[in-house]
Amino acid sequence: MTARVEYKLYGELVVFSGTANRPLAEEVAAYLGLPLGEADVFQFPNTNTFVRLRQSVRGKDVFVIQPTASPTNDNLMELLIFMDALRRDSAGRITAVVPYYGYGRTDKKDQPRVPITARLVADLITVAGADRFLTVDLHAGQIQGFFTIPTDELTALHLLGDYFAEKAIPDAVVVAPDVGATRRARDFARRLNLPLAVIEKRRPLDGSGAEILTLIGDVEGKNAIVVDDEVDTAATLTRGTRFLLQEGAREVYACATHAILSGTAIEDLQSSGLKQLVVTNTAPVAPPKRRALGSLLTVLSVGKLLGEVIRRIHGGISVGEMFDE
Amino acid sequence: MTARVEYKLYGELVVFSGTANRPLAEEVAAYLGLPLGEADVFQFPNTNTFVRLRQSVRGKDVFVIQPTASPTNDNLMELLIFMDALRRDSAGRITAVVPYYGYGRTDKKDQPRVPITARLVADLITVAGADRFLTVDLHAGQIQGFFTIPTDELTALHLLGDYFAEKAIPDAVVVAPDVGATRRARDFARRLNLPLAVIEKRRPLDGSGAEILTLIGDVEGKNAIVVDDEVDTAATLTRGTRFLLQEGAREVYACATHAILSGTAIEDLQSSGLKQLVVTNTAPVAPPKRRALGSLLTVLSVGKLLGEVIRRIHGGISVGEMFDE
Amino acid sequence: MTARVEYKLYGELVVFSGTANRPLAEEVAAYLGLPLGEADVFQFPNTNTFVRLRQSVRGKDVFVIQPTASPTNDNLMELLIFMDALRRDSAGRITAVVPYYGYGRTDKKDQPRVPITARLVADLITVAGADRFLTVDLHAGQIQGFFTIPTDELTALHLLGDYFAEKAIPDAVVVAPDVGATRRARDFARRLNLPLAVIEKRRPLDGSGAEILTLIGDVEGKNAIVVDDEVDTAATLTRGTRFLLQEGAREVYACATHAILSGTAIEDLQSSGLKQLVVTNTAPVAPPKRRALGSLLTVLSVGKLLGEVIRRIHGGISVGEMFDE
Amino acid sequence: MTARVEYKLYGELVVFSGTANRPLAEEVAAYLGLPLGEADVFQFPNTNTFVRLRQSVRGKDVFVIQPTASPTNDNLMELLIFMDALRRDSAGRITAVVPYYGYGRTDKKDQPRVPITARLVADLITVAGADRFLTVDLHAGQIQGFFTIPTDELTALHLLGDYFAEKAIPDAVVVAPDVGATRRARDFARRLNLPLAVIEKRRPLDGSGAEILTLIGDVEGKNAIVVDDEVDTAATLTRGTRFLLQEGAREVYACATHAILSGTAIEDLQSSGLKQLVVTNTAPVAPPKRRALGSLLTVLSVGKLLGEVIRRIHGGISVGEMFDE
Amino acid sequence: MTARVEYKLYGELVVFSGTANRPLAEEVAAYLGLPLGEADVFQFPNTNTFVRLRQSVRGKDVFVIQPTASPTNDNLMELLIFMDALRRDSAGRITAVVPYYGYGRTDKKDQPRVPITARLVADLITVAGADRFLTVDLHAGQIQGFFTIPTDELTALHLLGDYFAEKAIPDAVVVAPDVGATRRARDFARRLNLPLAVIEKRRPLDGSGAEILTLIGDVEGKNAIVVDDEVDTAATLTRGTRFLLQEGAREVYACATHAILSGTAIEDLQSSGLKQLVVTNTAPVAPPKRRALGSLLTVLSVGKLLGEVIRRIHGGISVGEMFDE
Amino acid sequence: MTARVEYKLYGELVVFSGTANRPLAEEVAAYLGLPLGEADVFQFPNTNTFVRLRQSVRGKDVFVIQPTASPTNDNLMELLIFMDALRRDSAGRITAVVPYYGYGRTDKKDQPRVPITARLVADLITVAGADRFLTVDLHAGQIQGFFTIPTDELTALHLLGDYFAEKAIPDAVVVAPDVGATRRARDFARRLNLPLAVIEKRRPLDGSGAEILTLIGDVEGKNAIVVDDEVDTAATLTRGTRFLLQEGAREVYACATHAILSGTAIEDLQSSGLKQLVVTNTAPVAPPKRRALGSLLTVLSVGKLLGEVIRRIHGGISVGEMFDE
Repeated sequence: MTARVEYKLYGELVVFSGTANRPLAEEVAAYLGLPLGEADVFQFPNTNTFVRLRQSVRGKDVFVIQPTASPTNDNLMELLIFMDALRRDSAGRITAVVPYYGYGRTDKKDQPRVPITARLVADLITVAGADRFLTVDLHAGQIQGFFTIPTDELTALHLLGDYFAEKAIPDAVVVAPDVGATRRARDFARRLNLPLAVIEKRRPLDGSGAEILTLIGDVEGKNAIVVDDEVDTAATLTRGTRFLLQEGAREVYACATHAILSGTAIEDLQSSGLKQLVVTNTAPVAPPKRRALGSLLTVLSVGKLLGEVIRRIHGGISVGEMFDE
Repeated sequence: MTARVEYKLYGELVVFSGTANRPLAEEVAAYLGLPLGEADVFQFPNTNTFVRLRQSVRGKDVFVIQPTASPTNDNLMELLIFMDALRRDSAGRITAVVPYYGYGRTDKKDQPRVPITARLVADLITVAGADRFLTVDLHAGQIQGFFTIPTDELTALHLLGDYFAEKAIPDAVVVAPDVGATRRARDFARRLNLPLAVIEKRRPLDGSGAEILTLIGDVEGKNAIVVDDEVDTAATLTRGTRFLLQEGAREVYACATHAILSGTAIEDLQSSGLKQLVVTNTAPVAPPKRRALGSLLTVLSVGKLLGEVIRRIHGGISVGEMFDE
Repeated sequence: MTARVEYKLYGELVVFSGTANRPLAEEVAAYLGLPLGEADVFQFPNTNTFVRLRQSVRGKDVFVIQPTASPTNDNLMELLIFMDALRRDSAGRITAVVPYYGYGRTDKKDQPRVPITARLVADLITVAGADRFLTVDLHAGQIQGFFTIPTDELTALHLLGDYFAEKAIPDAVVVAPDVGATRRARDFARRLNLPLAVIEKRRPLDGSGAEILTLIGDVEGKNAIVVDDEVDTAATLTRGTRFLLQEGAREVYACATHAILSGTAIEDLQSSGLKQLVVTNTAPVAPPKRRALGSLLTVLSVGKLLGEVIRRIHGGISVGEMFDE
Repeated sequence: MTARVEYKLYGELVVFSGTANRPLAEEVAAYLGLPLGEADVFQFPNTNTFVRLRQSVRGKDVFVIQPTASPTNDNLMELLIFMDALRRDSAGRITAVVPYYGYGRTDKKDQPRVPITARLVADLITVAGADRFLTVDLHAGQIQGFFTIPTDELTALHLLGDYFAEKAIPDAVVVAPDVGATRRARDFARRLNLPLAVIEKRRPLDGSGAEILTLIGDVEGKNAIVVDDEVDTAATLTRGTRFLLQEGAREVYACATHAILSGTAIEDLQSSGLKQLVVTNTAPVAPPKRRALGSLLTVLSVGKLLGEVIRRIHGGISVGEMFDE
Repeated sequence: MTARVEYKLYGELVVFSGTANRPLAEEVAAYLGLPLGEADVFQFPNTNTFVRLRQSVRGKDVFVIQPTASPTNDNLMELLIFMDALRRDSAGRITAVVPYYGYGRTDKKDQPRVPITARLVADLITVAGADRFLTVDLHAGQIQGFFTIPTDELTALHLLGDYFAEKAIPDAVVVAPDVGATRRARDFARRLNLPLAVIEKRRPLDGSGAEILTLIGDVEGKNAIVVDDEVDTAATLTRGTRFLLQEGAREVYACATHAILSGTAIEDLQSSGLKQLVVTNTAPVAPPKRRALGSLLTVLSVGKLLGEVIRRIHGGISVGEMFDE
Repeated sequence: MTARVEYKLYGELVVFSGTANRPLAEEVAAYLGLPLGEADVFQFPNTNTFVRLRQSVRGKDVFVIQPTASPTNDNLMELLIFMDALRRDSAGRITAVVPYYGYGRTDKKDQPRVPITARLVADLITVAGADRFLTVDLHAGQIQGFFTIPTDELTALHLLGDYFAEKAIPDAVVVAPDVGATRRARDFARRLNLPLAVIEKRRPLDGSGAEILTLIGDVEGKNAIVVDDEVDTAATLTRGTRFLLQEGAREVYACATHAILSGTAIEDLQSSGLKQLVVTNTAPVAPPKRRALGSLLTVLSVGKLLGEVIRRIHGGISVGEMFDE
């Protein structure tokens, strides 16, 4: 009988957290049974971000957890500077863990003379020293192709789907809040074996008149579950909710992986008639926002998911197997 | 009064054609009032592709027209080798003109352990010496972000839309043949001010049972116009056509930018009940296929569109303005 | 007699401004007799920066003026995104004009396990598409070596020196406020033919006791002119001013190229006993700060200097000759 | 006494085969006592090549065996796409094993305005993700310099030489079939301690008249062994064989590492008067060709050679020592 | 109780020496208890440098010790060629150990139209295959930022400081021989708790008249210790020594990390009145120079320092901890 | 009738010379009717090479002429540093003109564990800022493939061939002095329509016994013209000359593009019995060497050839046409 050879591919595992979502990083570290790596991360009065590692990372297998939600530019630059410090301290391998990928919606030139910032950010992350990239539910799967370093994109659709499966809402229909979300809504609907409807938003080409919503499919007398990748200003969701109720939906639920809740999202959601919004903690949801939304908001944690994937990446164990069905 | 300064940004304009779609290249050259550049392009008996320029391109502004339709690998390698010859002969600027971008559908990891070939191809084109990239209707807009060299993505939706606008089919509804095509179908519908429906394809997650089509929206008694970016094996289109007729559609039309028509596409289309398929010549449609499909097939030309854009790129004139509305 | 050949190296000159210091950009544009390029530059509610050019830059010779003063990360990301938009719209040449180079003081590892952010930023600027880099008075000349793209570093020492030369303060001595500023103070002293003194700051190695200032050289009965590259929190300057007065200086003046004035700089300067602070507008000095400092602050403009250098770079005319003496 | 430290440099060894020469890959795997890695490798009807790994390669030390013989472009693209899939699945190290390097003869600009495809291919292999490159008998040793990743070039001259040494043909003379093959023929001659002759092919510079062969050296009454790196269309070999017989050679043998046998090679060889052709299986020799040539053809296997070298590369053991003499 | 996991990050440690300073390399190897790696390193009669490794380095953790002191270009090219040989023989990791970094003083554009050779050299070292860089006392700390590969810059200030601490010279004052050396002199002074003075060198801007030295601070009746990073032609040091004696210094000592001693340095030092010069062996000090200077010169060895740091880098142990205070 | 459009692709033409072969550069400049660009190029006492341009090159089309003959490393580094200065002064385009490419013979791994320095040098030239590369008669054509920047390789075979054509030596035979030179000798023979012979050098594989020369072909009673790319130590040529005389040659002539003449070349040639050696001035032949060889040596100039090619490259005119036949 042959012994199983153990390959130690990289040095010791260390998980650092930037300042963007430390509670999530702590959950990950707890799952892994490790303390978070120690570092001073702050801004000088002149708004220059600074990072000083308080432990050597020479040869180690380092993961930095930093979603690039608001303030996006500060969080992104902090991640880049963190990686520069790690690289210059001779880290063995650096994985940028970005559970929420800011700028993900600027992923194509849908009008002339605009940037593709989602690609630019991929290049910035790479040039700053990342060896790998780990993220959750990109706005578009193609963003993985913006990287040449190996990437792992996880999905929280399992978490959200299981939640609603357990909830077992009767007469449910899954709704894509705009045509761009159709594919994601379809995947969710298939997982729960529910029918699908799509809200189409159209503004006359000549610019005259207001945007008009049309429902493709049927929600009358049903409970709608609106599915999207993120809720940002919540404009799409709140308008969609009102429209669905007006089209005869009994109650409207919604779920999304990322909760940005910028602008007047909180107020708009409160007055929209939405029954419940289920999200995850890839981006931090600040306590005042949680309090304001109260029982309207349910936040599921991706901490164990990220922890398990990091464990596997460190150990050279397949990540894909976690999701094969 | 000041004279208008003329900036001569690059050397003389030269347009070459690979072997993939010489008739299209000839249309472009005719539009520009230029002869096509001269080169020997062939395969040795050992299947090695060879390119020998028969004119100097030193300092010139060179465009190579080569869609990477079937045989994809031969066409792609021919393009790469052509550019290597141009670069080594000191071309001033090289633009890869790829009206149909092969491998465009392998643009994300929708399952574990697969390549993102559309990104790989972007890297190959860049490393072979392209300074710019010009294409028509990518499978996904994000593919532009796979390039860092400047790209121009044109759309043939105008051509196709104008064709159907003139045709003025009564009681028309635009149909996305699967959820992935929803966005493109919506853009087409908005252009013609028509309603939208979506065909959803779903196979049970546990693998049991066959794929089931569902119609989201309504086609009963209407004339359907199915919109997609390309027709490859035509499986989606022929199945969709039958399904729409079964759901009560009067007649089914279809349009797509790229006509690949591989496998049993010709036979399947002939027996599908489809009324008309309108495509462009970004990829060459071989005469036997044209003959076999007869009046079922209408091929519009992108030759003038490409010619005008090349004229503008050479002259440093805005391309976006052609499409601003 | 031979005609002088005119080489038109690049397309038309266009100068854009980010949001960091638009008044300076307007001075530059005015010098050049051009309107500023038009673009929408703003943040979405989710703090994602967005840039949309409102004119084509195809083939043009573009300069983007954006000092990376506070908010540093927002200004830097805005610059990077701006350049991505320019590159993807096929600008002929892109020059990043960064009159104040943020992160310039993080230019070496003066302690273990820290980043060299000034180098990282150089890489970010390059990867985002800059073809050239133009700046004023870097914290250390070596930062030019962080770039491989051609750079032009201008100095405002002429402006500041000429100001004090005209002022003709009697019995003046130039003072370096810490040893790191010695070289710059010496250059200034040589220009005005004045003696030099240096303030040395020293804290016991064992950490016991407070920082102690020592004066190397002599200021007793003299008027001191403190010279530095930037005034940030003004801690060094205000402490130095008090120390010099205590050492017998009659009056204390100061000059620096960059006025950051972060933290409690304004209040500290007001109470420091400083007679006058002369700076330039490489970084914007907000009106409230100007008002608060009143006659204590004199701001010279680098607008014409930048304008003339941009004119020369565009025209392929030597910049070095402006500074040869 | 100290124990010998074992360095485990990379993860587990895995050998994959593309479709170009699976029998050779199976020999290699058998030598190593491993099953071949599992993957689906095929072309869609639209001729797009696709690769789907059927096992995780995370952290593993992967070798992909794929000679780029005919169809060259398909085999090369398959190799590149295979490596993209491996890289994106986080392989620890990827070695491209290309026993026959297609495009090797396009290795210099021997006329103006042609590509150097052998260099282009090296860049393609590198950009697709290869960490190392392993090949057998390049057309020119300089091709190793086209790579910057570490390469191992093996030679099959040992195999071929040993075969002829054992055969012990009397009165033998080694013949270079053209001047380009002189060096290789000399190396072979030295190994067997035989004299050397060279066939020179010359066409008048003015293009008038046919190509004329001249023999430099002497073959009269001797048995000639023609040595080349590959036999492609066999034009050089068949013409050389006839010429040698005409110059008085008793019998003509030939050997080459790579057997491409394209065009009319089979028929030409059959009618050439050649006694025996000895080659290896770096490129696959299809069974019909083997049958057609019958006893005229002898194929030696490089399977064990490749297997042993892969074993050493995986284990960090010197490869050069295998060939030191 | 858990066992401590041992990570073997790289293959076996091997230390090679170029020809620039073999005695130092032997000290390092002795410290590590290893023989130096074997290689033939020489120049052909045509002055082409050649390197032939006499042992396999496949997968090994290789350090090449080669200061780039005079002859600088030969030593540098030898280092680059050495690394190319190592890389092509598949070394696991290559660290360029350059105890004296030649061209370090050409680190900024202090006049127009000059190179930044210190950056160029960093790029050459990287492109030749270095994975890491290890050096001692760079002319400016910013040079670390010229590299993106991880670097370790050691300092010999400890060695020099300890030497003078033990010597306990009474009434000592540390002197920076020009303003560029002020920071280093201050660090040294702080370490020994001594006062600081600075020699300022100034030439009238209009070029009239000779260079004038001014002393900032006070040396009268004191023993001066001049501190610099290197002593090259010794012009600064000898002139400074005479000036300090003239200003009333009792005796003048000097220390510097690097002893280049080019041009007439030996003669000038002998006649300068300097009491003692303390340096290290980062650059080799040829025996004739040592003999000529006799007791005037003290050479401390950095051999153990380098050996210990190499041991730590190989083992993945913090280097920074050696210097934390 | 249309006017011919003049494209001004780059700024004004400027030709600089390094110190390696200034007389050749002066010939080139004279052909072009230009003064050589002005620059200070020298070594400091510490052997650091320095370059200071004495004129602005902003936007200009710059050629630097610098063969990398002995002292190879100094000449190469001087070229690299020169280009860094040009790049940082914003040259519009930089062409490295290296008439003799040092390290060209280290172009492949003909034994294990050696570098491929000819590739390394190509990378160094590229990383230092060359946009183009221009050279004469590379040791192997494949070296062009070591570059990705556009290269022009000229040949002096025309010059040498014309010289011998005019000389019209009766009963001539062209001889390759070793098998590596066979191809070049064949090209030369074809040009003059002469027969070919080859000298084979062989040392027993077991290392026993001396190297043995064999003549393949026939020289008896003929006048031999030995053809090689360079004459370095002249060992091959002098031994070959004696051998040919011994084999019955009447007189022995030789020609080569590059005259290095290192080691004991001069003495050996004088005593070898060689009748005449014809070379070019790609590498400088020092006056003492010229005097020592007297009428034995004929040096042809490549000055006009280089000048004409530079004129064409600057003007965007085909270079290949100069050599088409």
